[in-house]
Amino acid sequence: MAKFLRHLFVCTNEREPGDPRGSCTARGSAAVLEALKEKAHAAGLKRIVRVNRAGCLDQCARGVTVVVYPEAVWYGGVTPADVDEIVERHLVHGEPVRRLEIPAKDLTGKEPPPGFGSGGTPEGGTE
Amino acid sequence: MAKFLRHLFVCTNEREPGDPRGSCTARGSAAVLEALKEKAHAAGLKRIVRVNRAGCLDQCARGVTVVVYPEAVWYGGVTPADVDEIVERHLVHGEPVRRLEIPAKDLTGKEPPPGFGSGGTPEGGTE
Repeated sequence: MAKFLRHLFVCTNEREPGDPRGSCTARGSAAVLEALKEKAHAAGLKRIVRVNRAGCLDQCARGVTVVVYPEAVWYGGVTPADVDEIVERHLVHGEPVRRLEIPAKDLTGKEPPPGFGSGGTPEGGTE
Repeated sequence: MAKFLRHLFVCTNEREPGDPRGSCTARGSAAVLEALKEKAHAAGLKRIVRVNRAGCLDQCARGVTVVVYPEAVWYGGVTPADVDEIVERHLVHGEPVRRLEIPAKDLTGKEPPPGFGSGGTPEGGTE
């Protein structure tokens, strides 16, 4: 067998009702997850592409969040109406759906310090 | 901000007691998840590396499963005793821990048909 060609993670985090941040679940991520699974299988992608639920992906402000690896393409505000396009364009043809991408500057990841990952020691980042 | 340098997903799937496949949760994945989060933060990796729970990663036979993207390195049979080595060697220094890797031939992903992802149409895979 092999690695999956692509691996999608859909945020299905939940928060207490009334939390001002809301959550992907409150915004409908379960329906996005199910539509992605169903349509990826219908497109013949079973075991070529895998779709999984995930804990909080830390992009709450962007609506329902989906990340696609190994490309590390981040989609925000995804609805079930977007799923056909994600499957056909990105999963089948390898072209990310640019209109749904979260701009890199808006993602919450932090650049590593210079030299990191090449034998250096990380500094800071203990906020 | 930026993308995460590395993104780890820990299988926290649960199954009914008595299911012959068992599950990563029954094998102790919650403790692995917590140890990875705690030690990655302690190593200064907050927001450089993210650790998330995930649904079934489909490698049940291998024990507690962790996948690291964007490298697509798959670890099987992970215990809390392995976490220091994963954090120090892989997350900080970028060197996967080979003794924990699931061999590619044992992963459950399926090779795409020839030409797939370059404008072709997938065939088969609807098992």
